Amino acid sequence: MNFLSDTTAPAHPQVLAAISEANSGYAPSYGNDAITEALRDQLSQVFETELDVVLTTSGTASNALALSVLCPSHGAILCHDEAHIHRDERGAPEFFTGGSKLLPLAGAHAKIAFAELQLTLNQWPQDFVHTPPPRALSLSNLNECGCAYSVQELAALTSPAKALAMSVHLDGARFANALASSGETPAAISWQAGADILCLGATKNGALGAEAILLFGKAREKLEDLQARQKRSGHMGPKTRYIAAQMLAWLKDDLWLELAAQANASAQIIAEGLRDQAGADILHPVDGNEVFARLEPKLAEKLRQAGVGFYQWPDGSARFVASWSTSAEELRAFEATIKS
Amino acid sequence: MNFLSDTTAPAHPQVLAAISEANSGYAPSYGNDAITEALRDQLSQVFETELDVVLTTSGTASNALALSVLCPSHGAILCHDEAHIHRDERGAPEFFTGGSKLLPLAGAHAKIAFAELQLTLNQWPQDFVHTPPPRALSLSNLNECGCAYSVQELAALTSPAKALAMSVHLDGARFANALASSGETPAAISWQAGADILCLGATKNGALGAEAILLFGKAREKLEDLQARQKRSGHMGPKTRYIAAQMLAWLKDDLWLELAAQANASAQIIAEGLRDQAGADILHPVDGNEVFARLEPKLAEKLRQAGVGFYQWPDGSARFVASWSTSAEELRAFEATIKS
Amino acid sequence: MNFLSDTTAPAHPQVLAAISEANSGYAPSYGNDAITEALRDQLSQVFETELDVVLTTSGTASNALALSVLCPSHGAILCHDEAHIHRDERGAPEFFTGGSKLLPLAGAHAKIAFAELQLTLNQWPQDFVHTPPPRALSLSNLNECGCAYSVQELAALTSPAKALAMSVHLDGARFANALASSGETPAAISWQAGADILCLGATKNGALGAEAILLFGKAREKLEDLQARQKRSGHMGPKTRYIAAQMLAWLKDDLWLELAAQANASAQIIAEGLRDQAGADILHPVDGNEVFARLEPKLAEKLRQAGVGFYQWPDGSARFVASWSTSAEELRAFEATIKS
Amino acid sequence: MNFLSDTTAPAHPQVLAAISEANSGYAPSYGNDAITEALRDQLSQVFETELDVVLTTSGTASNALALSVLCPSHGAILCHDEAHIHRDERGAPEFFTGGSKLLPLAGAHAKIAFAELQLTLNQWPQDFVHTPPPRALSLSNLNECGCAYSVQELAALTSPAKALAMSVHLDGARFANALASSGETPAAISWQAGADILCLGATKNGALGAEAILLFGKAREKLEDLQARQKRSGHMGPKTRYIAAQMLAWLKDDLWLELAAQANASAQIIAEGLRDQAGADILHPVDGNEVFARLEPKLAEKLRQAGVGFYQWPDGSARFVASWSTSAEELRAFEATIKS
Repeated sequence: MNFLSDTTAPAHPQVLAAISEANSGYAPSYGNDAITEALRDQLSQVFETELDVVLTTSGTASNALALSVLCPSHGAILCHDEAHIHRDERGAPEFFTGGSKLLPLAGAHAKIAFAELQLTLNQWPQDFVHTPPPRALSLSNLNECGCAYSVQELAALTSPAKALAMSVHLDGARFANALASSGETPAAISWQAGADILCLGATKNGALGAEAILLFGKAREKLEDLQARQKRSGHMGPKTRYIAAQMLAWLKDDLWLELAAQANASAQIIAEGLRDQAGADILHPVDGNEVFARLEPKLAEKLRQAGVGFYQWPDGSARFVASWSTSAEELRAFEATIKS
Repeated sequence: MNFLSDTTAPAHPQVLAAISEANSGYAPSYGNDAITEALRDQLSQVFETELDVVLTTSGTASNALALSVLCPSHGAILCHDEAHIHRDERGAPEFFTGGSKLLPLAGAHAKIAFAELQLTLNQWPQDFVHTPPPRALSLSNLNECGCAYSVQELAALTSPAKALAMSVHLDGARFANALASSGETPAAISWQAGADILCLGATKNGALGAEAILLFGKAREKLEDLQARQKRSGHMGPKTRYIAAQMLAWLKDDLWLELAAQANASAQIIAEGLRDQAGADILHPVDGNEVFARLEPKLAEKLRQAGVGFYQWPDGSARFVASWSTSAEELRAFEATIKS
Repeated sequence: MNFLSDTTAPAHPQVLAAISEANSGYAPSYGNDAITEALRDQLSQVFETELDVVLTTSGTASNALALSVLCPSHGAILCHDEAHIHRDERGAPEFFTGGSKLLPLAGAHAKIAFAELQLTLNQWPQDFVHTPPPRALSLSNLNECGCAYSVQELAALTSPAKALAMSVHLDGARFANALASSGETPAAISWQAGADILCLGATKNGALGAEAILLFGKAREKLEDLQARQKRSGHMGPKTRYIAAQMLAWLKDDLWLELAAQANASAQIIAEGLRDQAGADILHPVDGNEVFARLEPKLAEKLRQAGVGFYQWPDGSARFVASWSTSAEELRAFEATIKS
Repeated sequence: MNFLSDTTAPAHPQVLAAISEANSGYAPSYGNDAITEALRDQLSQVFETELDVVLTTSGTASNALALSVLCPSHGAILCHDEAHIHRDERGAPEFFTGGSKLLPLAGAHAKIAFAELQLTLNQWPQDFVHTPPPRALSLSNLNECGCAYSVQELAALTSPAKALAMSVHLDGARFANALASSGETPAAISWQAGADILCLGATKNGALGAEAILLFGKAREKLEDLQARQKRSGHMGPKTRYIAAQMLAWLKDDLWLELAAQANASAQIIAEGLRDQAGADILHPVDGNEVFARLEPKLAEKLRQAGVGFYQWPDGSARFVASWSTSAEELRAFEATIKS
């Protein structure tokens, strides 16, 4: 019953098999191999548009690299106060951008409130040499409370930003979970909703370590700059074929959506158990594979003693994360523990 | 009737005279001259402690240099959401520290609310590799709303920070105004209240361009690092004698306090005029030389037409700044305008 | 006949098998897993000393991270003019250190000449606020011309550096090849010869992507700083167990030395073919798995037409790299081509 | 007899008088004042072209700011191995550019040798993701050995650089001295010879602290970026009028050229004394106000005992710098000492 994080899960067998399959003979290094090329074509099909792809093994790196080509060192990035890029990446965006400023915005359930965005866009100077101008808006979908932005919510936030010539970055560490829960197409909740760059993560959903930075539309002009920064930051892996192979297998036959849907379903079961059986407060809508609950100390203790792994959030709540590998046995054991 | 900013004022004649006096013969460059040495002694007397001094011509540079030796690139700096270092220095702290993160805190009248500080110190991880740990607390006195922290307020904020081994930076661009209004000693509202480094500004109060970074106590161990960064950022002026001469003249016979007291008194007159005669809301206590008021459009228009210079603040209020050079004539003309 | 680079080779089956074996059940993320712990113990045994380990998937990242804890932003790093960190990492050391300066030194066969080092240490100021002081010496073994430093050569270079309190970084992207050729112990050509940090690479010698930063002696005090930078740069992989598993398998039963020895032997055959059969100039001692030759245009053309992959070096020479996967068939075909 | 550096000299009375004159009434801050505007017009006339101007008080800052808009963080800057930006600015260019790389080139008398430049442009990759591409060429005139590039020499070096779309930065800390010695027009040895940005220094030649960054031609498009960086680095002085006033007075009636010519003439007298009377080796052509000599220990001792101030250069030679304030008395005393 390990619900600590989807990063504690192993890789899916099909992903692993793809690595073995890729492990034959010589291949050009640094992303010039055939598998990486095939992945690009596949992603282009999945997202229904021409795009460029840069691969890394780390979501933090993907986010920071993406932001570094969207925001100059003397600019600012708007994000939610709970955003992973703000709280959980040890200042990676500041490092990669050369010292830009993250402006944290409020909003329930880790969604940026429209009014907050408006207020900041109105009051924070756009063109004043003394103040870092907002140059990028960063959104996470799924976000850090496990909630999904709808297409309409995304458009409402990206639209005023784009009207001010800001770029939009989408942190998609759990993009597949958002996709599975929304029933939208990948295109609809990424570039069609205003995203210039999507950081698409597979690591939390079945891969060993595979993250893709997808450049859409005008952002494709940033490719050369992005690749220079990718190399400079040590993220241009010499043997890229193994990253590409993971992601290709993950996309194949919609495996990514299947795994995400399964994790989402497991999270529903966890949430129901906590809420209906144990009477715990579920703090945010469970749109994906994460459940945040306020636990009575007694319940928390009971769970821990039964070996249920969950994470104590800084605000005192408990986070339970289901993954593709959460098993029926685990869920049954969890329910049994709750009821005991 | 120019109340736009104290930086629009000229330099005081005695400061200018000191430059002329210093302009004789050869002098060692880069801060190794006798005038700079004399200034250090003088500051040590004024602040009643051993200290080290680094001179620049810019408050932004002083603040950012100070912070760069107090907070590592992967740490965070707590400051008020209205802080000059956060809003008005184009990301200088982020640049000089190599990409640290500024965490803006709330609080009325641009004073950090104690509860806000406590909440952040409790909830923001101190020792978690994923999160930039708070390593410095930055306070401005006078602050950005023209308010002064009392000795007790300073101690209340610096005490929990120091308990967590954080350093304390004091932005003293208008330190003399705070001093003049409080009646405290320079020592009492700087190092005795917990400041490790004070950025003492003379530019807004009678100098052409003279700012001193004062290192107290253990922070003096940072001197070598600070000088390296001073040189590296182009702030180790070749002819430092002219900066030192300004500040020496400014300190002499308490000229700095006299000029500040005069500016503060002018601000009181401006505030009274706006409040009592014109019925405007004065938004913050007028502890120093700045007045923030909410003006009826009609009043604003009348003032502008009469040639009264003031600054439109991002939140829609009007800022009036008095300086040492604000004259009795200006104040009389202002009052006459109000009454007209 | 692919001699383009050892990064074009696949991973060794035992390394791949170890990944599969590690892919079972949940494991703590970010390097807190049992396999990573076991690797640390194993490396400690192999290097005969207590040490700390940080894992990445990129040699460029390892080098730059290591240098960032050894040299401050306002310091300088001495390295050979041909060093990979200087020429082939897109300025990664400058990025990770926050803008330190690389001072390139001359020397035959990509070995820093002792006299050059001495001259720089004598003439480049050590303690002058205007000049970045040399704080680190970086050596590569194997180096960029495929040559190995002997224990004596290493000691001769590190000794004057350490006398000036400089730190020593060892780029060991091909450390196993140097080891196999020298017959020394890992300890002898790393920390016993003065290295504070060794970047030990497995990627070029049988791994998919596995690099270890090893901290020896006093450098272990830098661990916390290093981990902060590892996270901040996106190199703290969430699923570290897969990197650790690769390196454990690679070390097991001296597989790393066996693979390196095999690659070295292949390089000798390539060199002999070029020199003895084709009369080409071999430009540097072939201490490891790399051969640099000056080819007559006709010979170069013949090789290319026969499908021999080699790399055109910036100085006009041809680089041939053997890897663990260079096969007897390839070598025979190469010899046949030469003789044809 | 102070020949230590032209930065030890006082400011010229006319420059000081201009400051006093500027010190009247209110003036817009941050460079929006009338004097700064007048200076821009004056510089435009002097350089016979439209240009943009950014003012600082430090040559190091000017150079680093200029380079930061000409070279991206992942690019390289070519300069002479003796260049001030390489040796004497504590890594300021690396800091301001965000970690670019300086590639030091050889050449007699601190002039980049044409063949060295060609070799680097040929061998250092221009478009290879692994290597920082050369994006800027930096030249100093006068250079660090006190030598002046002729128009022809400048054009020979800038021409191949510009053919590769590199930008050209001119460090003109002693530009007036080069101008006075060459008899060329300011335009001829700056933008007409290929410079995109000239850092024009007055501080070493009669000012207290006044440096202008001049943007020519297409480089003017960088103005907004440059101003953001100027603010961000603390070099947008609040009371810019005092810097502008210095430089206006310095340019007026060719005072700058007069002072430079006088300093140059003094240097000739020093050189003649050392060479003809004392038999010392003069190491470089004395094109400006600096003399580098190899002194017999006995001569060095005699000079020191007589109170002659000179600087011991890292290579063991002695540097004598004349300034505008070097007096006939000093020169006579120097000659008398030599002959004694």
